[in-house]
Amino acid sequence: MKDKINVGVLGATGMVGQNYISLLADHPWFRVNHVAASSRSAGKTYGEAVRGRWHLTGDVPGSLRDITVSTIDEIELAREKCTFVFSALGSHVAREYEERYAVAGIPVVSNASAHRSTPDVPMVIPEINYHHLDIIPIQQRTRGWVRGFIVVKPNCSLQSYMTPLYALHEKFGLKQAVITTMQAVSGAGHPGVSSLDIMDNVIPFIQGEEEKSENEPLKILGSIDGSVISNNEKVKISAHCNRVPVIHGHTACVSVEFERKPTRDEILGTWKDFRGISPKYDLPSSPRRAIIYREEPDRPQPRLDRDAGNGMTVVVGRLRDCNVLHYRFVGLSHNTVRGAAGGGILNGELLVAMGYL
Amino acid sequence: MKDKINVGVLGATGMVGQNYISLLADHPWFRVNHVAASSRSAGKTYGEAVRGRWHLTGDVPGSLRDITVSTIDEIELAREKCTFVFSALGSHVAREYEERYAVAGIPVVSNASAHRSTPDVPMVIPEINYHHLDIIPIQQRTRGWVRGFIVVKPNCSLQSYMTPLYALHEKFGLKQAVITTMQAVSGAGHPGVSSLDIMDNVIPFIQGEEEKSENEPLKILGSIDGSVISNNEKVKISAHCNRVPVIHGHTACVSVEFERKPTRDEILGTWKDFRGISPKYDLPSSPRRAIIYREEPDRPQPRLDRDAGNGMTVVVGRLRDCNVLHYRFVGLSHNTVRGAAGGGILNGELLVAMGYL
Amino acid sequence: MKDKINVGVLGATGMVGQNYISLLADHPWFRVNHVAASSRSAGKTYGEAVRGRWHLTGDVPGSLRDITVSTIDEIELAREKCTFVFSALGSHVAREYEERYAVAGIPVVSNASAHRSTPDVPMVIPEINYHHLDIIPIQQRTRGWVRGFIVVKPNCSLQSYMTPLYALHEKFGLKQAVITTMQAVSGAGHPGVSSLDIMDNVIPFIQGEEEKSENEPLKILGSIDGSVISNNEKVKISAHCNRVPVIHGHTACVSVEFERKPTRDEILGTWKDFRGISPKYDLPSSPRRAIIYREEPDRPQPRLDRDAGNGMTVVVGRLRDCNVLHYRFVGLSHNTVRGAAGGGILNGELLVAMGYL
Amino acid sequence: MKDKINVGVLGATGMVGQNYISLLADHPWFRVNHVAASSRSAGKTYGEAVRGRWHLTGDVPGSLRDITVSTIDEIELAREKCTFVFSALGSHVAREYEERYAVAGIPVVSNASAHRSTPDVPMVIPEINYHHLDIIPIQQRTRGWVRGFIVVKPNCSLQSYMTPLYALHEKFGLKQAVITTMQAVSGAGHPGVSSLDIMDNVIPFIQGEEEKSENEPLKILGSIDGSVISNNEKVKISAHCNRVPVIHGHTACVSVEFERKPTRDEILGTWKDFRGISPKYDLPSSPRRAIIYREEPDRPQPRLDRDAGNGMTVVVGRLRDCNVLHYRFVGLSHNTVRGAAGGGILNGELLVAMGYL
Repeated sequence: MKDKINVGVLGATGMVGQNYISLLADHPWFRVNHVAASSRSAGKTYGEAVRGRWHLTGDVPGSLRDITVSTIDEIELAREKCTFVFSALGSHVAREYEERYAVAGIPVVSNASAHRSTPDVPMVIPEINYHHLDIIPIQQRTRGWVRGFIVVKPNCSLQSYMTPLYALHEKFGLKQAVITTMQAVSGAGHPGVSSLDIMDNVIPFIQGEEEKSENEPLKILGSIDGSVISNNEKVKISAHCNRVPVIHGHTACVSVEFERKPTRDEILGTWKDFRGISPKYDLPSSPRRAIIYREEPDRPQPRLDRDAGNGMTVVVGRLRDCNVLHYRFVGLSHNTVRGAAGGGILNGELLVAMGYL
Repeated sequence: MKDKINVGVLGATGMVGQNYISLLADHPWFRVNHVAASSRSAGKTYGEAVRGRWHLTGDVPGSLRDITVSTIDEIELAREKCTFVFSALGSHVAREYEERYAVAGIPVVSNASAHRSTPDVPMVIPEINYHHLDIIPIQQRTRGWVRGFIVVKPNCSLQSYMTPLYALHEKFGLKQAVITTMQAVSGAGHPGVSSLDIMDNVIPFIQGEEEKSENEPLKILGSIDGSVISNNEKVKISAHCNRVPVIHGHTACVSVEFERKPTRDEILGTWKDFRGISPKYDLPSSPRRAIIYREEPDRPQPRLDRDAGNGMTVVVGRLRDCNVLHYRFVGLSHNTVRGAAGGGILNGELLVAMGYL
Repeated sequence: MKDKINVGVLGATGMVGQNYISLLADHPWFRVNHVAASSRSAGKTYGEAVRGRWHLTGDVPGSLRDITVSTIDEIELAREKCTFVFSALGSHVAREYEERYAVAGIPVVSNASAHRSTPDVPMVIPEINYHHLDIIPIQQRTRGWVRGFIVVKPNCSLQSYMTPLYALHEKFGLKQAVITTMQAVSGAGHPGVSSLDIMDNVIPFIQGEEEKSENEPLKILGSIDGSVISNNEKVKISAHCNRVPVIHGHTACVSVEFERKPTRDEILGTWKDFRGISPKYDLPSSPRRAIIYREEPDRPQPRLDRDAGNGMTVVVGRLRDCNVLHYRFVGLSHNTVRGAAGGGILNGELLVAMGYL
Repeated sequence: MKDKINVGVLGATGMVGQNYISLLADHPWFRVNHVAASSRSAGKTYGEAVRGRWHLTGDVPGSLRDITVSTIDEIELAREKCTFVFSALGSHVAREYEERYAVAGIPVVSNASAHRSTPDVPMVIPEINYHHLDIIPIQQRTRGWVRGFIVVKPNCSLQSYMTPLYALHEKFGLKQAVITTMQAVSGAGHPGVSSLDIMDNVIPFIQGEEEKSENEPLKILGSIDGSVISNNEKVKISAHCNRVPVIHGHTACVSVEFERKPTRDEILGTWKDFRGISPKYDLPSSPRRAIIYREEPDRPQPRLDRDAGNGMTVVVGRLRDCNVLHYRFVGLSHNTVRGAAGGGILNGELLVAMGYL
């Protein structure tokens, strides 16, 4: 790609926004030339705006330290400066602003939860349901948007089991699953979880997380039905979501039942062969392996496996029979990379490769 | 109880043994007048033997600091000095030595796993299956033991869900359950889990723990059948056991299905009314409430709830529908109190109250 | 004490306030019959006001669950209901409100930093400078307060070394000390320190803490000079204050030099003999031993030693020569008990015993 | 460098050895073609030998997975296969074996403590005392070694403050320092520190660590005096060494006094200009900046700063006046990279660049 595509980041100073900035700093396809945040940061350089609240290891990327922060209300400016925007807005403002950007002709690739259940907005994990992007022209036509559209990604909690389950669903038909997640504190942003609440502790509750973990998969496994995406209502998921004293990396213990019970070798073979995104696309953020199965009896572990494939690979292990459903396994993914900014960027890359951007 | 009963502690210098010593130091019924350990400690005072490796808060109880440590081979001495022994022996020596003590006429109340699957050895949680103690005379007769016998308690991992499940099983018939545990590092003893392995991490595997968590409940829910205790083979349990960075307190996420689906109110009422040990016994270590249900959306939590009922109460919360089985809930118990020494002492108290000691 | 003294707690819903409530629930001398907080909590029962944000193990004490929360503006009501108040107010409101209560004739025993450097307000650790309370009548006369006065306690960071240093200062003259603290997260209140900031980390900075750790000791070691307390300007303290991933318990590494270098035995003997509060007072919160020296090479440790003397004892260890100053040692105290509410309550008890209340 | 130099790693399966393997896998100058360990591992491939006990993120480097492990007794084989060896041997065997390798004509670049106080063995931090390598021919002559020699590196605890102190010592003369370290658990190897001992805790003691932290700097600042390196006895260091719940990265709080008190700007300028290793050497593991000073008030922090310069840079911050000595600052370095294998490799590179290998 000779000329990089100009992109913007909305909500660039928050924790998810910082991850976008960090991952986009040397991106081979994208150049960040617009960052927007609340009025508190507007007018400052990005370096000034995040001073004292930059939460990543290493420093603010040098190439973006001096870019001036705009407000998210400067939509016209965004339209002039960039081809599309990544949204890391908080849910409370995302609904309104993402639509305003789309109306103004700016495609929005969002990390926010605001539009995940909006029926004509595709919620995409590229390895699974990139064909849901076919709804984009329908979305535009229905809403009268000319160039703008909204695409979202699902919640971080389900990335650790959704891809391995989908790979098996294609062949054996996913019927039901009982899933217990052990989620890292970075999933709550910063300041997020108080140290007093989580040190030497487990919190067996995360507001709204079980609902997302149970419902979002049904849309991802759903299909385009006229002008909307219909959920796959045949699948049943029961999620127990816990916060544990881990910095990054969500782990999931999965018990699963299929329409047709596969053999153990069929499962391992399916995961091994799973290619993820249609091989014709060669996306820069796509890991060489979408799923890695580890043979050791005690893997995956968040600290050892979260960085597999630069944080974009889902690592699974411990496949074994279940006494109640068919099989059990453990899945793991990096919640702030695959589960947040990295997943959003992969969506952006896919949209470029498929010609939507 | 006017005169205290003399008891011994086998394996008194290990971590479980230290918990026994700590909990027995001011026990209203029992007086520790014999402690045994490996030859390394023999001849020393207990205070000397555990110097530099006493792992509990507070100091070695003053009343036991100067007791001389015997070897576990001094069985005759044990018989002279105490009415029965608590065994905190490691599994590798427990099988042989617990039988040798029983042969010598010394009842053994054990914390070890060695005899948990021995068919004529009762594995008891007093609130659930105290009637399994009826097998003691059969055990003695079969083996030709005169005064000695062996009683064991189950693994720590299942204490956080077994009592709440049993309370419901009595009324609604337990059919199957998928259970994910998040277990504290103290469950592995000392030095146990390396800090390098568990800080900022989850280990989704504990050697042998899932098998214990799945099989031991079947014996606990079983019945005396001639000269053995037969498992309840109708119940199916699938356990995912994880180690998490928590010091004390095992948490369990439970999805459960019954023969007859109860209402939510029936479940809460059952737990509220559950009395545990037959009210005619007034055991000193028995908590006022065997089960406490917390209404807050984010409880139980190990750091906040493990000490309920002096560590002997099981705390449950988050009862809600399950999309796959009938209901979901979270259970928690203190693994080194209820799940180890405290549970053993409660067994000892029950044996006294029922006239076996 | 036949009739308990009615007391109030200002700022009762915050974390320090919760500690006051917890420690005062069964106090032998005091009865909490007035609690005040911000208008957000006013009118609710205390149990309602702290629902979902009670941060201590165990529940809200039953005896105080139903007391109605007043606003801190209801000063007249406080005067009617209680003999004096404990202030756990945040520093931003403490300065104004503590004076208003004193003006209204209500003695204030404060935990806040607002008046620590006010020259006529005594800052008291009972074991050290109870004689500074002699300034109370002077304070009242100067300010024209009739019954009211203000007494404060010092910052939590210095409790782990101040008492052991004072015991030696009496005999050998404290000259200078270099002190590095490793402070628990509970010292920052709730939510306080973000888990993302402190897990697998040390933060070598706590806003304002080094200044307090260096300056407050000079006042505590100072003397009444006319109508003010003059600092002891001969002593020099250099403090490095760090936040570490510990829940409760501040640890201090101390290098110290005296006017006259004592022998090691003199130091140990001095600590052993140190009686703390004048033996004629028998204060309920006063630990049996103000200072405990542990002989083990690796003590004190926060998790093992913070609860010594119900959290009111300072534990020291590792006394050894220093290559630069005279001696080195490690000190430890429980920051939310001795260092906060427990220290405030001890001040209240002392004021009663000395006849000021 | 066209042809890589063949090197061996002694003690390759332990934790320090694993770090050597990891850092040497793609080294531009060195090729590992000999690995030695205890007889337990001998004959296995390296991948087999560390199976289940590989403690680093990522996998065993593919290029070294299939190399056969030799015993450390196969000295002749080592001589045939490699130009020199890195020693990650445990201290108990290092003394004997390192000498045997040197006798056999194999230079030894050691991480072990065995020879740190041996007077004719240089203990080198390249940025500080590379000129101590001048003793190598003297060492060889005295001992009658033909090609072999021994060079060691100092303990990990002092890397976080020694380079910044040395930079100042050159100009202002280091007189004395009081230093408190907060050291990561990885410094104790694996399994090393038990999670039960360090979670929610600080251990204010590490066996032998304070002695090393105080004495090794004197040798590093010493000079060659005939056939030995004489300590700089004018410098006094007092060290308090603590273990804290941090995975990697040792932090040090330093109070320091100089012969001539510099200004703050002189210190910052000195650190900024400090070039470390003589610029004529361009060592692959040498960081671009030996010392980085961070301006933020709360840095350095282990989790955020340990990876600076690929773990080879020392990060300092918080320079401020000391009330007792001249200045205070905080230093930090990565204990398993700069403080162990990375420091050893840098020594190896320096020896090559200076013509000793």
